Amino acid sequence: MTLARKIDPPFRIAVVGGAQASEIEWELALDLGRQLAGLGALVVCGGGGGVMEAVAQGATEAGGLVIGILPGSDPKSANPWVGIPLATGMGEARNALVVQGAEAVISVGGEWGTLSEIALASKIGLSVGILGTPPAEGLGLRMLEGPIEAAGWALERAQAFRGS
Amino acid sequence: MTLARKIDPPFRIAVVGGAQASEIEWELALDLGRQLAGLGALVVCGGGGGVMEAVAQGATEAGGLVIGILPGSDPKSANPWVGIPLATGMGEARNALVVQGAEAVISVGGEWGTLSEIALASKIGLSVGILGTPPAEGLGLRMLEGPIEAAGWALERAQAFRGS
Amino acid sequence: MTLARKIDPPFRIAVVGGAQASEIEWELALDLGRQLAGLGALVVCGGGGGVMEAVAQGATEAGGLVIGILPGSDPKSANPWVGIPLATGMGEARNALVVQGAEAVISVGGEWGTLSEIALASKIGLSVGILGTPPAEGLGLRMLEGPIEAAGWALERAQAFRGS
Amino acid sequence: MTLARKIDPPFRIAVVGGAQASEIEWELALDLGRQLAGLGALVVCGGGGGVMEAVAQGATEAGGLVIGILPGSDPKSANPWVGIPLATGMGEARNALVVQGAEAVISVGGEWGTLSEIALASKIGLSVGILGTPPAEGLGLRMLEGPIEAAGWALERAQAFRGS
Repeated sequence: MTLARKIDPPFRIAVVGGAQASEIEWELALDLGRQLAGLGALVVCGGGGGVMEAVAQGATEAGGLVIGILPGSDPKSANPWVGIPLATGMGEARNALVVQGAEAVISVGGEWGTLSEIALASKIGLSVGILGTPPAEGLGLRMLEGPIEAAGWALERAQAFRGS
Repeated sequence: MTLARKIDPPFRIAVVGGAQASEIEWELALDLGRQLAGLGALVVCGGGGGVMEAVAQGATEAGGLVIGILPGSDPKSANPWVGIPLATGMGEARNALVVQGAEAVISVGGEWGTLSEIALASKIGLSVGILGTPPAEGLGLRMLEGPIEAAGWALERAQAFRGS
Repeated sequence: MTLARKIDPPFRIAVVGGAQASEIEWELALDLGRQLAGLGALVVCGGGGGVMEAVAQGATEAGGLVIGILPGSDPKSANPWVGIPLATGMGEARNALVVQGAEAVISVGGEWGTLSEIALASKIGLSVGILGTPPAEGLGLRMLEGPIEAAGWALERAQAFRGS
Repeated sequence: MTLARKIDPPFRIAVVGGAQASEIEWELALDLGRQLAGLGALVVCGGGGGVMEAVAQGATEAGGLVIGILPGSDPKSANPWVGIPLATGMGEARNALVVQGAEAVISVGGEWGTLSEIALASKIGLSVGILGTPPAEGLGLRMLEGPIEAAGWALERAQAFRGS
């Protein structure tokens, strides 16, 4: 097996956030999806509602592709904008898979589940940026101004991760 | 969250088999990848060498897309034909994810790891077809004549699974 | 962290088998539990019904301890003889954990789920012995005559595994 | 399968914290292990060094039993005070298993890995108490005064969880 790649995979950016989104969070995630798709990134998310659905809608409407890594075992439980639903049947342990599958992570709002993804991503050495209100304080992570900055920053971090 | 899908995900067919492939198995998997891509299917595999690499090469060369669900935590460990490498860091437990992510499964040769995937897929109710020599006897599974029949059969089973 | 052990963990033997057990399988598993407990082994199982319940009853009644590694997220779903129920919420992927937690494996009957455990255990290099009818043919594994032989053999294999 | 339990499992308390412990954290965890064992609790931890080793030493020296749920696939990688090492081979995803296996959680210091465990535990509805410096601020969790209070509080929360 030669490791010289025959194709160049798109950069994979995980977007994590609550299954319930405020109106502001919904708009942030929707636009973030558009921006990421515009930069050619593949969006990885948990495949559910709220922020996960908004980012998937934004990315898909802008011509991008979205992978939804689902907690349950039914691929039909994915939100309707997910292009590749991957069931795991692993419950909350799937949070580790959402971030393992990515090269950089952006969080939008969220609570305990999102915090677990931020922590797991940081633990494995991925860059994590925050849009909106973070689920905890004192995290020392990059605060992002808006979807445009967030998408550009994430792509740059993913590039650095892949090159490392 | 409305469940009326906004996009129609491609059918996801898992191809499982040994990280070491005989020449015959390599050719079978290579052609299987071509056939699956020709039918518009997305190939899900373990992302490694042998059968996993051959099917990825066949599918990618034919214009298809391949997801590699990797046992390790380094996405660069994927074989060079994988379009979307998803690291899991979960070791052998990732075998469950390869089949959970699919709507039908085809095995090509293989040994213990492949047998675990055949068994897990059957356990969760997916159709499993066998190309080449199965890793055990008495499994009572569909024996497939060749890559063309295999790809057609898998698509049909995936369609039935999705409709169920 | 020094690795000289301060305590000697008991040998961990996984017993895998169907959630539905025939009368013969029930008796085999019940006696197997007794024999393993008599030899001081800790029984690891999936924590459910059928063979998992019978082996847990046998071991517990004989004064042994049983760990049940459950597919669901509710520890109360364990059968009533499990001394340490560990919920995983990981569904079928928990099968990998049952065998990863052990030093040798005995199967009693079973179908696809059991076959996945036999295959995963063999893949990671554990010795697997078969009591009763195996879930597939041509596996090339040790066929065990009865619970007494099975327990002794498993302890010996676990000892070899630990020493390796 | 009748659900009336034949034996009463000990309460399972997860203790999470860094693989590197300050002297203060080491002492806190060591004493916490003693207190938990004194109350008859079973300690669940990640099986590694630092806080995981200190709590295991304290509990084992006081006659208690410690389960170590390991990230790697080698049970010998457990710290020397773990009575039941369970390898998972699942890397960081094993953090979900440490908390899923428990009925209440106490954190002692720690960083990203510990924060992921605190978040996952809170997400699945377990009570989480904090000893020492928490890995993030604004978590809104119970701050514990010392090992004696911590152990008593955890047992009470585990009892409530089991009764629910």
